[in-house]
Amino acid sequence: MGTLSKDKIYSFENSTKLFERATKVIPGGIYGHQSPVLCVPGSFPYFIEKAEGSRFWDVDGNEYIDYMCAYGPMVVGYNNPRVEQAARKQQEILNVSNLPGPLWVELAERLVKLIPIADWVAFAKNGSDITTWSLQLAREYTKKKKVLVAKSTYHGTHAWCTPLPPGVTPEDRANIVFFQWNDLDDFMKKYEANKNDFAGVIVTPFRHEAFENSAMPGPEYYKTIRKVCDDSNAIMIMDDVRCSLRLNLGGSNEYFGFKPDMICMSKAVANGHPLSVGAASAKLKGVASAVYFTGTYWSASPPMAAAMATLDELEEKDGVAYMDRIGKMLMDGLQKLAANHGLQVTTSGPGAIPYMTFANEKDFRRMQLFSAEATKRGVFFHPHHNWFVSTAHTEDDIKQTLEIADVAFEIVKKKFGS
Amino acid sequence: MGTLSKDKIYSFENSTKLFERATKVIPGGIYGHQSPVLCVPGSFPYFIEKAEGSRFWDVDGNEYIDYMCAYGPMVVGYNNPRVEQAARKQQEILNVSNLPGPLWVELAERLVKLIPIADWVAFAKNGSDITTWSLQLAREYTKKKKVLVAKSTYHGTHAWCTPLPPGVTPEDRANIVFFQWNDLDDFMKKYEANKNDFAGVIVTPFRHEAFENSAMPGPEYYKTIRKVCDDSNAIMIMDDVRCSLRLNLGGSNEYFGFKPDMICMSKAVANGHPLSVGAASAKLKGVASAVYFTGTYWSASPPMAAAMATLDELEEKDGVAYMDRIGKMLMDGLQKLAANHGLQVTTSGPGAIPYMTFANEKDFRRMQLFSAEATKRGVFFHPHHNWFVSTAHTEDDIKQTLEIADVAFEIVKKKFGS
Repeated sequence: MGTLSKDKIYSFENSTKLFERATKVIPGGIYGHQSPVLCVPGSFPYFIEKAEGSRFWDVDGNEYIDYMCAYGPMVVGYNNPRVEQAARKQQEILNVSNLPGPLWVELAERLVKLIPIADWVAFAKNGSDITTWSLQLAREYTKKKKVLVAKSTYHGTHAWCTPLPPGVTPEDRANIVFFQWNDLDDFMKKYEANKNDFAGVIVTPFRHEAFENSAMPGPEYYKTIRKVCDDSNAIMIMDDVRCSLRLNLGGSNEYFGFKPDMICMSKAVANGHPLSVGAASAKLKGVASAVYFTGTYWSASPPMAAAMATLDELEEKDGVAYMDRIGKMLMDGLQKLAANHGLQVTTSGPGAIPYMTFANEKDFRRMQLFSAEATKRGVFFHPHHNWFVSTAHTEDDIKQTLEIADVAFEIVKKKFGS
Repeated sequence: MGTLSKDKIYSFENSTKLFERATKVIPGGIYGHQSPVLCVPGSFPYFIEKAEGSRFWDVDGNEYIDYMCAYGPMVVGYNNPRVEQAARKQQEILNVSNLPGPLWVELAERLVKLIPIADWVAFAKNGSDITTWSLQLAREYTKKKKVLVAKSTYHGTHAWCTPLPPGVTPEDRANIVFFQWNDLDDFMKKYEANKNDFAGVIVTPFRHEAFENSAMPGPEYYKTIRKVCDDSNAIMIMDDVRCSLRLNLGGSNEYFGFKPDMICMSKAVANGHPLSVGAASAKLKGVASAVYFTGTYWSASPPMAAAMATLDELEEKDGVAYMDRIGKMLMDGLQKLAANHGLQVTTSGPGAIPYMTFANEKDFRRMQLFSAEATKRGVFFHPHHNWFVSTAHTEDDIKQTLEIADVAFEIVKKKFGS
């Protein structure tokens, strides 16, 4: 069991104290996707002290095998020596200044070589910086305004796409047309109704919404969207922020076999160093020069050095294949364990972005109990959000994880019967 | 003259080669505020190799005393040992993970103590993340939509405020009401016309637009805006992104003597490590929990460690007073030199954010020549954008700067006569 023990139940005194202090000076104490209300308060830590490889330690000294990878960024392991050495070396020479450093060009050249659809790239900090800009590029290119977006798809927290209504005006969404994900009849209906003002479509490579199983699109989905965009000279955008570098280094569209005009990347691109990337075909290069896009920290060199090293690691170790295998090993193991207990679970998503829920459970009560019992014993499973694995997750990690999952399944079985 | 020489004219072979490569794979080669078209192509470098203290070296090995400070972030010197050590130590333990680290709370507590109007803070990456969110908070708090914004004031590149029209739809600005900066008649007129749907106002502490002299508001300006907001129960926001930590550590409003409800901070807050901060009064804390706001890298600890060390440096060395003094020494010196040559210049802005233009010159031709000749000799003066100084700028830097400025003035005099 290494340093984890299925018999040891964690407590969270320091986390709780720190969270109480946090609520006094920060809205909600911790806001956004890390808000504790999205997990199971009392069974999850609130604050993390350190992280290394596939593991982190909370402020009470509890150790975890991590299946969230910082919600995606950590793809070659926390504190990866090669990535950190590259970033540190660059930081000692040049961070942000009046102009970019040579890595601005070197990373751009490498990404353009790596990503089949890309003739150019641009750098920013947040995923949202790129997704919002991509819509502007589509509008500027087409001189049309409407962009089709699958309902409830997560593209960030800007007003046009944020999942929660507060702070959003009707005008913020006046040019967004929502259609049902993977429903080509609905897509065509919405397209027909807006085709005179149709600028483009933004899609995620697969469906990975919180509070849902992950899902793959039907075989005609991307083909139809591509054709509609081609026929209208409109722009097809893929928001690959969450999946970047986990399914295919050249863009997750290569995994699914389609060619968007623009790819929005972030999260894993620099293994946690802040960087986002827009990568697109030549036809958008002119409008990309015209739609003003900039940020103070965007040309900082250290995240670019980290991105180069992250790509080196993934390429040399065939990280994409490894993550697929290790994630499938986890999902297969969970399936078998659940069946041993007479429980039915649904595993979903590709190996590198695995997820599990209890079959036909709408209220997540079993899932919350399972995640809480696993987390309290050192396996951080999010109850309501897809998981992530990294190249730092070992077969031994999976073995230890399954031993603890076994206990968690047993508790679910005892409480719910099935 | 230290390592600079007024007799040595720089050339930019490596910069030019790298820029040619850049244009192939990046829109415009370098886009946004760093685009070379905003300076004087041929007389400015395109790429920077390393930076230290008040200086940087371009990719041709040319050394510069820097008066842009990375467009603001560098406030205690490039590669400041105390800041870098703090960030590096934190980076070795924890960068970004599933949850924040203890610095999330410690920095928030420190900022709430430091900033008189602040009862809470929230962290993000870009200045725009905070300015855009502040408008959403004002709308959610008031349940009204219109926000008054001074025309041509820079608040970022989101569609509601970007300085250039491409990619912007009329709907993006449907709830923005522009008024003339520092014109209270116009402000009141626009307020009266929109008072039934009035959510608030966003202001910068002083006027610091590109292609303009900096300017201070009239004595009634903030008093009137504050009163209108109070009478309407609307929100007064200050966008302090550019001026953060340079005029007053507690917010630039303290320098000008007014109390906004919310302050948007970024740039200098972590001496170049990517961080932005929203700081606001208690009345906005509820809506700040409600308007969804999050980003993958926002809870990363190393920029927070850098922010703590930046504050330590500025507090211990009374950095704000120092920058005011050193910047005024620069402006006074330039005034005297210009007069010696029979030239008239206008210096503007506070000491820490100085600027100079040629008096009554609309086309910037003298200013472009002056900046180009200074930059080609190792003093990086931006022709069209306010400058910045840092605590790393020494009296000897100013002395060397003025020796080179003297040569640049002489060339301007020779070419233009006056």
